[in-house]
Amino acid sequence: MTMSLSAELWPDVQPETARRLMLAGVEAFAKRGYHATTTRDIAGAAGMSPAALYVHFPSKAALLFAISRYGHEQTLALVENVVAKESDPVERIRLIVEDFVAWHARRHTVARVVQYELQALPEQEFEVVAELRRRIERIVRDVIADGVEAGVFTVSDAHISARAVLSLGVDVARWYSERARQTPTTLGKEYGGLVLRMLGAARPETPVTD
Amino acid sequence: MTMSLSAELWPDVQPETARRLMLAGVEAFAKRGYHATTTRDIAGAAGMSPAALYVHFPSKAALLFAISRYGHEQTLALVENVVAKESDPVERIRLIVEDFVAWHARRHTVARVVQYELQALPEQEFEVVAELRRRIERIVRDVIADGVEAGVFTVSDAHISARAVLSLGVDVARWYSERARQTPTTLGKEYGGLVLRMLGAARPETPVTD
Repeated sequence: MTMSLSAELWPDVQPETARRLMLAGVEAFAKRGYHATTTRDIAGAAGMSPAALYVHFPSKAALLFAISRYGHEQTLALVENVVAKESDPVERIRLIVEDFVAWHARRHTVARVVQYELQALPEQEFEVVAELRRRIERIVRDVIADGVEAGVFTVSDAHISARAVLSLGVDVARWYSERARQTPTTLGKEYGGLVLRMLGAARPETPVTD
Repeated sequence: MTMSLSAELWPDVQPETARRLMLAGVEAFAKRGYHATTTRDIAGAAGMSPAALYVHFPSKAALLFAISRYGHEQTLALVENVVAKESDPVERIRLIVEDFVAWHARRHTVARVVQYELQALPEQEFEVVAELRRRIERIVRDVIADGVEAGVFTVSDAHISARAVLSLGVDVARWYSERARQTPTTLGKEYGGLVLRMLGAARPETPVTD
């Protein structure tokens, strides 16, 4: 169970032991916070010795960095994939929001660590993650600016709007749980509609169809 | 400096020593998380002995509860004040968002503790805070539902929309800092405009004026 979950979360991480440690790290950090968690806690939860943990991650910070970096790489990939397959700004934003929101709902425990433990990263590692964040934000901002130029969005400030769009998605990680009324996919679609209206692209009376 | 800040944050809390401890608690919890902070750390940061802390707060959980409860009472008061002074649903939502967003920007360190350390509260204290949260969400949902009934908002689900409106405000606490490009008031106004469009109330071409 745990093994298949970790493989689903981090398909690119090998070996399985490293993924198991990342999963134990996510659970411990999400529950008690990074600073209150020891590598001994994490190793224990993964059924290993602290020495076995160090084989894969030289420090607790390295483990947090792996969780954070993969999370950011995955969300950046979602956004880049949409831009690669779709050229219309309205459809781009709709799909970006659908995927970004669904990711934060589906992966809400991982996402909480990814989004809320950034300040615990050492400076160099923080910089790597900050650059991934800037790339995500830049793509969203550019798509909004393209839409404004094309006359399909009407916003006064692409920077603030991009921040608000991503904010809606990030905050899903804070409140979403398995008890939520919407599935991740449904929530993504609802938020996609809300965001398009926020950007001035669509009202229910005048659906944007062409 | 610190004293006047604490009086500004919690005007209803007496004596000043209690406010000073709350401020030290906010700073420590925001920096390292609730679980990694000891009462000794907090007392030390406030220039007191742990015994002096216990005079005001019987436990670390009691201190967190005070911070969390006052924060939620303040944001509930903002929302209730708007509803008391304004009856138009569009203006109500605009002012609620302006005030709620500005509060989360201006008080971003306090707000981070208020919004992100909830799960550390003991069960009974959590229930008190959860009820305050439900009251805030209910008011926003009711204003949205009133607007839908009056034909000024067009949303399919007042519950999801209320969640999204509050989410935008809450997430400000995560990313806002003194280095942000907008003042809390300006950000509140920008978000007020974005939210009205999200609810289908206004487009730049067709301002809602009657």
